[in-house]
Amino acid sequence: MSARIIDGKAVAKSVREDVAAGVAALEKDHGFTPGLAVVLVGEDPASQVYVRNKGIATREAGMRSIEHKLPADTSQDEVIALVRRLNGDDEVDGILVQLPLPGHIDANVVINEIDPDKDVDGLTEVNAGRLVLGKDALVPCTPQGSILLIKTVMEDMSGANAVVLGRSILVGKPLASLLLAENCTVTTAHSRTKDLEEVCRGADILCAAVGRPEMVKGDWIKPGAVVIDVGINRVDAPEKGEGKSRLVGDVDYDAASAVAGAITPVPGGVGPMTIACLLKNTLTAAKRRRGL
Amino acid sequence: MSARIIDGKAVAKSVREDVAAGVAALEKDHGFTPGLAVVLVGEDPASQVYVRNKGIATREAGMRSIEHKLPADTSQDEVIALVRRLNGDDEVDGILVQLPLPGHIDANVVINEIDPDKDVDGLTEVNAGRLVLGKDALVPCTPQGSILLIKTVMEDMSGANAVVLGRSILVGKPLASLLLAENCTVTTAHSRTKDLEEVCRGADILCAAVGRPEMVKGDWIKPGAVVIDVGINRVDAPEKGEGKSRLVGDVDYDAASAVAGAITPVPGGVGPMTIACLLKNTLTAAKRRRGL
Repeated sequence: MSARIIDGKAVAKSVREDVAAGVAALEKDHGFTPGLAVVLVGEDPASQVYVRNKGIATREAGMRSIEHKLPADTSQDEVIALVRRLNGDDEVDGILVQLPLPGHIDANVVINEIDPDKDVDGLTEVNAGRLVLGKDALVPCTPQGSILLIKTVMEDMSGANAVVLGRSILVGKPLASLLLAENCTVTTAHSRTKDLEEVCRGADILCAAVGRPEMVKGDWIKPGAVVIDVGINRVDAPEKGEGKSRLVGDVDYDAASAVAGAITPVPGGVGPMTIACLLKNTLTAAKRRRGL
Repeated sequence: MSARIIDGKAVAKSVREDVAAGVAALEKDHGFTPGLAVVLVGEDPASQVYVRNKGIATREAGMRSIEHKLPADTSQDEVIALVRRLNGDDEVDGILVQLPLPGHIDANVVINEIDPDKDVDGLTEVNAGRLVLGKDALVPCTPQGSILLIKTVMEDMSGANAVVLGRSILVGKPLASLLLAENCTVTTAHSRTKDLEEVCRGADILCAAVGRPEMVKGDWIKPGAVVIDVGINRVDAPEKGEGKSRLVGDVDYDAASAVAGAITPVPGGVGPMTIACLLKNTLTAAKRRRGL
């Protein structure tokens, strides 16, 4: 048996095309173009790459990308003042503050200054609350993308046993809320869980989001299960040459794909969905703000 | 085998005494008395009883009870204006809007006007978000009380398999968050769950909050498990005479108490904890607002 590979790149491309079509329709019917504001403080190289890629993707979808790059020594009050300005700016539909912020800035305080209706990363307390309460939230991108991937292989998740490995606020917790909203029976497992293997073996849908390379073994997986691997871990790859590395997920992919019914690869699974869902959230925010 | 009975009345009494001691200490050391404002709109008889009982309990704990009774035809804007006034009133530490509100008022809008730091019922989106994010929240009273009851028989829940039956926003969802914060492996089960009996049989801690009289049978329970019965259902009791009724929980108490290690009765289990936790939240809110 060999699992169906869930092609995150292809699904993400299709999501981005849908967003672009939605943006074009908004322009045609209502004469406005959604705008996403990205705030970058400091010069962290990885963050610079992310912000550049988000800008490219935003423009490719036909939206406006508004980039605010502030020096590393910008005060917390100045960042907050910028966020408040963006909250009040009708040209801005989504606001994203690139994390991590420099150490002298309390990310929690800054994030919660974002207007929840423009919080396209879904990181504010209000959006977390709306999500868990089952209201219209802007849903964090990675768990949202995970759900979209599951839906490509399992149309109706109702009654499925879903196990979420990991309870981070960025992935594990919102993913559990989303699976519950899909009427799964949801178990959240973590480092303190006893008989973790046995818990995983009960999963019709197994989502791994712990950040431990290849922790989930092939024999932890129920035959035919849908496996969503959210982990992205860089490990040494001496076979590729001295000092080389490669990316692996939280799941032992080769062993798992011999048992699972469907599985996401790493890279090329959940990863590409994140920016796609950010664009989707920006379009959603733009429409909701205007009552569309 | 016969389960230990978790005496909610006694635990609630002890919580209320602790609150009273905390209130007395605040008065002695800081010269202020926490105040709880209760807003009642209309003349629903059950709500009137609840509000009266809350007022009595508040005063018994040494706190100020501030009651606002508005006629049933009060407009939504007037209720919101009152909530905003209470938000700005430094003499008010907790605000409780008694539900249900009359049909012409959107309870969701009114509740979310409450300052989250005074939201002693824990019903605002912000508090729901804080709870799920693991931040300092004001936690809804019934699930908070359930956790306190479990702690009387199980000091360390870490690694225990907890099953929450029901996913209401008032009980099931916050209870799942709280059990996760106690490092349980948490499964949320509901009407769509397959093999519900089997899921329940895996529970070291089983919390039933579905509102279906005696749905959980004795053979659904793992020997030695802690059973928390949140349900309060009124059923006919012809054995007590014509037209008589009695209260039962969501668990078949007699059968379950022959298997469980510990169990809450109905009435006298979770029920009495609710007002006790409301008082506890009011004291917590009063202290936090003043940075104590």
